[in-house]
Amino acid sequence: MSFEPSEVITSVHNPGIKQARSLLRRKGRSEERAFLVEGTRALTDMMASGAAPSLVYARDTPDDRALVDDMAPPCSVRYVSPEVFAGLSDVPHPQGIVAVVPMSEVTAEPRFDIWRDDLILVADGVRDPGNLGTLLRSAAGTGVTEVLVTPNSVDPYNPKCVRSAMGAHFLVSLRQMTMAPLMEYLSGLDAIIVADANGADSYDSAPWNRSCAIIVGSEAFGPNPALVDLATAYVRIPLARNLESLNAGVAGSHLVLEAARQRRLAASLQEPA
Amino acid sequence: MSFEPSEVITSVHNPGIKQARSLLRRKGRSEERAFLVEGTRALTDMMASGAAPSLVYARDTPDDRALVDDMAPPCSVRYVSPEVFAGLSDVPHPQGIVAVVPMSEVTAEPRFDIWRDDLILVADGVRDPGNLGTLLRSAAGTGVTEVLVTPNSVDPYNPKCVRSAMGAHFLVSLRQMTMAPLMEYLSGLDAIIVADANGADSYDSAPWNRSCAIIVGSEAFGPNPALVDLATAYVRIPLARNLESLNAGVAGSHLVLEAARQRRLAASLQEPA
Repeated sequence: MSFEPSEVITSVHNPGIKQARSLLRRKGRSEERAFLVEGTRALTDMMASGAAPSLVYARDTPDDRALVDDMAPPCSVRYVSPEVFAGLSDVPHPQGIVAVVPMSEVTAEPRFDIWRDDLILVADGVRDPGNLGTLLRSAAGTGVTEVLVTPNSVDPYNPKCVRSAMGAHFLVSLRQMTMAPLMEYLSGLDAIIVADANGADSYDSAPWNRSCAIIVGSEAFGPNPALVDLATAYVRIPLARNLESLNAGVAGSHLVLEAARQRRLAASLQEPA
Repeated sequence: MSFEPSEVITSVHNPGIKQARSLLRRKGRSEERAFLVEGTRALTDMMASGAAPSLVYARDTPDDRALVDDMAPPCSVRYVSPEVFAGLSDVPHPQGIVAVVPMSEVTAEPRFDIWRDDLILVADGVRDPGNLGTLLRSAAGTGVTEVLVTPNSVDPYNPKCVRSAMGAHFLVSLRQMTMAPLMEYLSGLDAIIVADANGADSYDSAPWNRSCAIIVGSEAFGPNPALVDLATAYVRIPLARNLESLNAGVAGSHLVLEAARQRRLAASLQEPA
């Protein structure tokens, strides 16, 4: 179904616009099981990952119409006045295109078939949307089985998080999980690896080749003490120059990349000569 | 020298304010050899790294005066009207404190004394200030000898870059270098390692234990072909799920962290038993 270009929405009271605007807030996203993907770059990334937008809103200007024609989204496009569009965007100078995308359930499985054991990434109180997006991107790229996000973390469907994940929401299984089911889940794994500046051992000595979870804690407060108590390995990334910490997105990414490196190495050693 | 609290600057034509405002632009920073550090978090990080602000501008409100009293910056503080302060900030809702900080020359040396050989990080066309800041932070934390930035990269003294580097500007040697001296410099190293999605070998097989440079290219266009031609190793980070790339800050950080890991390992193997 498509709409005629002449039907330009000019009222913020339009029901579709009201619904789309509700997706700018965590509560609305959670109720509608949908989120917004804004701008051509993020939308291209997202569609390349297999996402199907349900609807695109575009600003009614010649430039933005040309943008939409170039992109040819596989869904209805509704044009809106610049004033209405401004209310759909979370950036000061929007590009003029935003898609409503249903949250999808990605199956929890590593995509490196050489891996027999689960690698779970837990974002436990990560507050910066850019950091969480980066972690999701890195998890997708390292064959992480799934990413679990605790409720005190930023919403992974936050627009900034969606931008920095560059489509990873549709590549890796992502679940928001409260502490009780999370602790139950973790108890089924061989190893629970907690990363912290005060960790006892260097990260590369952790048991990455067994089924394991890596816990990345809050930027300001570190990992949840309840999860530190569960840890079977408590690791740090050794740093020079008395630096206390790295960016949380970088640190967590480095750990899953190290897990992937060790697993590739183990798999290559097991290959018949 | 200190100023009386009563002397509140209310004019944007004040010479100090004009000079400080010039530091919001690359040209001004380059001419004055100084930059702005805004907000208590960034300023605390920066001072912890050994930076000495030459002057602090603070908004003349009770809250901001309390903020300054808590922080007690080791330099003059000048209070300005909220209108004047807004012109000194690069964020929409500023915290009310910004410092003028002279660019410092940090000596080029690794801070892990177990390292005999240089590790140079080259940011070659990195355009996102958050990515460059992250790279600087990771370089500081991994004993990188120095960071070289090509002119087509974002200015490392850009306020967003300063925020995400969290004080690294004062921990690691940082030089902006044009292509000719850069190529001359690189020719003196044992290895030139270029990271690229199309790289031939996995990054962990590169000769990290020799004196080497790691080249991290532009987010959109990859590394400069002239530097790819110079490369003695052309490496990729193997990725799952057909992912093309990671965030450039994450990828470059992962490589210097891997170099640090390999160098620590080599040093521990050389220790007498």
